[in-house]
Amino acid sequence: MSERDSSKVVINEPINGRDYVVLTGDRPTGPLHLGHYVGSLAARVRFQKQYTQYVLIADMQALTDNADNPGKVRENVFEVMLDYLAVGISPEESTIYLQSAIPETAELTLYLLNLISVGRLSRNPTVKNEIKARGFGDEVPAGFWAYPVNQAADISQFRATLIPVGPDQIPMIELTNDLVRNFNRIYHTDALVECKALVPLAGLLPGTDGNSKMSKSLGNAIYLKDSSDIVAKKVKGMFTDPAHLKIEDPGKIDGNPVFAYLDAFDEDKKYLENMKGHYIAGGLADGIVKKRLIEVLEAFLTPIRVRREQFAREKSEVMGLLKKGTERSRTRVIDTLLRVRNAIGIVQL
Amino acid sequence: MSERDSSKVVINEPINGRDYVVLTGDRPTGPLHLGHYVGSLAARVRFQKQYTQYVLIADMQALTDNADNPGKVRENVFEVMLDYLAVGISPEESTIYLQSAIPETAELTLYLLNLISVGRLSRNPTVKNEIKARGFGDEVPAGFWAYPVNQAADISQFRATLIPVGPDQIPMIELTNDLVRNFNRIYHTDALVECKALVPLAGLLPGTDGNSKMSKSLGNAIYLKDSSDIVAKKVKGMFTDPAHLKIEDPGKIDGNPVFAYLDAFDEDKKYLENMKGHYIAGGLADGIVKKRLIEVLEAFLTPIRVRREQFAREKSEVMGLLKKGTERSRTRVIDTLLRVRNAIGIVQL
Repeated sequence: MSERDSSKVVINEPINGRDYVVLTGDRPTGPLHLGHYVGSLAARVRFQKQYTQYVLIADMQALTDNADNPGKVRENVFEVMLDYLAVGISPEESTIYLQSAIPETAELTLYLLNLISVGRLSRNPTVKNEIKARGFGDEVPAGFWAYPVNQAADISQFRATLIPVGPDQIPMIELTNDLVRNFNRIYHTDALVECKALVPLAGLLPGTDGNSKMSKSLGNAIYLKDSSDIVAKKVKGMFTDPAHLKIEDPGKIDGNPVFAYLDAFDEDKKYLENMKGHYIAGGLADGIVKKRLIEVLEAFLTPIRVRREQFAREKSEVMGLLKKGTERSRTRVIDTLLRVRNAIGIVQL
Repeated sequence: MSERDSSKVVINEPINGRDYVVLTGDRPTGPLHLGHYVGSLAARVRFQKQYTQYVLIADMQALTDNADNPGKVRENVFEVMLDYLAVGISPEESTIYLQSAIPETAELTLYLLNLISVGRLSRNPTVKNEIKARGFGDEVPAGFWAYPVNQAADISQFRATLIPVGPDQIPMIELTNDLVRNFNRIYHTDALVECKALVPLAGLLPGTDGNSKMSKSLGNAIYLKDSSDIVAKKVKGMFTDPAHLKIEDPGKIDGNPVFAYLDAFDEDKKYLENMKGHYIAGGLADGIVKKRLIEVLEAFLTPIRVRREQFAREKSEVMGLLKKGTERSRTRVIDTLLRVRNAIGIVQL
């Protein structure tokens, strides 16, 4: 594993360990791929040793734009859980939980929806882009349009302080903090706490086709669960430098996803630098570089694959771990919700 | 009590009693007044003998446009409960419950928000008018804008079939049924059921100032809890026929709120008809008609006032009744939510 996944902590204070609460997670809409690994999973494996970390399988949020395909969400809860365990997110060091199993999140979402205007929500640039990308127009489901408030509930119910996000998601964190400040000000409380964005230094891992983003919908992803054969096939079909036609031609490293993957996963940096020099000078075939990448990915993916297959045979144990994490999470959430209801003055029967 | 509050059942089928589930209720934002009595409370006292009736104290909904004034909502939960008990809504024959104490409603609200577009919600005429009346503009709280979906969750979680509403609220019932149909179609289920609007034949009781609607914000209301002195003072200050200047002048009945109140509350119809004839012909002073109205309202309000004061001294018992009703309601709601989660395929841990 390279240092590419090291994260820039946006806050300036020194990090004092377990007092910092990280909330992170994924919508269960597909298995996880190398892009997820570089972009977030690797960091989580580190964070769980430094911070108190909650990892959310966001099935409620996944339904906001998959309401008519709930089977996809349902099936991928287990798939994502397998990916987490396989890469080393430990149920002892992290608390993994299922969003739908914590009904208090929905309650907090409703309280927070009262503290933000329709205009403010409509101006959220992250969601505006996502609505555009999905071609929703005026037919955007209200639940999808409002999901940043649901996400703010996820975060604030844990009184989470560090949220790992990509740069495009910083407006979501600002919106969360607006809601937290509004809540605390209006209800004269400190029940909720503001959070800070943890933005990784490294960029995204490109797709196998050279697209800047690896994603399921673009069909350019290498999955953590892909077999050796599939990985080899995908690497052999990868985009390289289109001007590198003959072996003796000089080749380009920049914008060449094969080298981006080697940067991310090849631990022998000296060997990699030599290979880069040779490629730039000319005389190194794409096939040779790809062969090296296949070896490197095999070395990286084999133990993950083995663990994943092992866990896949123990479904009830795996779901039991999710249940246990959800129960542990709910204890913290219920504590926050008691403070929230007290602050608002909800009548307790 | 007159027959003015008799309701036109919009459905054509014969009514077969307890199989019909009524859901009705109020936002706890102030004590209830005579307009509430004529418009809904009287019908509830009848409905509880015919149907299975749930009566909702909608504190969550009240917060959607009172987020910065939760004390008002909090205090009025008890006030509304006193009004209910005082007019004869019986905790044995009706099930009275507190909205915020049923967290499943929030969960169902989130599921339903995924099944309606932002455009469809924005076009809801009832809410459009309310947003206009409140002068919200673009600054309408998202929770208020979306409250029809929360209301649809209230209704559908009980599988309620009859919803007493004013004619202006029929679009809310249509929206609820759209959501119910979408849910059942998309998730191949009959977990939710459609409802029908029960629209009262009689119009609204006018305000003491002659405004077509009695309301707290207009300051033209006579409250169920008003003392004899206050009722007398309010009646004496009532708007009548502005052309009825001298006693001998002929007077108008139409648009004269004093006669509208007598129509609603004077049980001696013969005496009332004589008085109306006399007033139209001329020679009957406003003061005499108002004196009659004071007598009639006193006869109507005295037993209500006595019961209300009695219950007011037994706060813990009253709140205990609300708790019991909420628990009974929640049993039914949890049953619906199990079906809802099964239909969507939410992972059960």
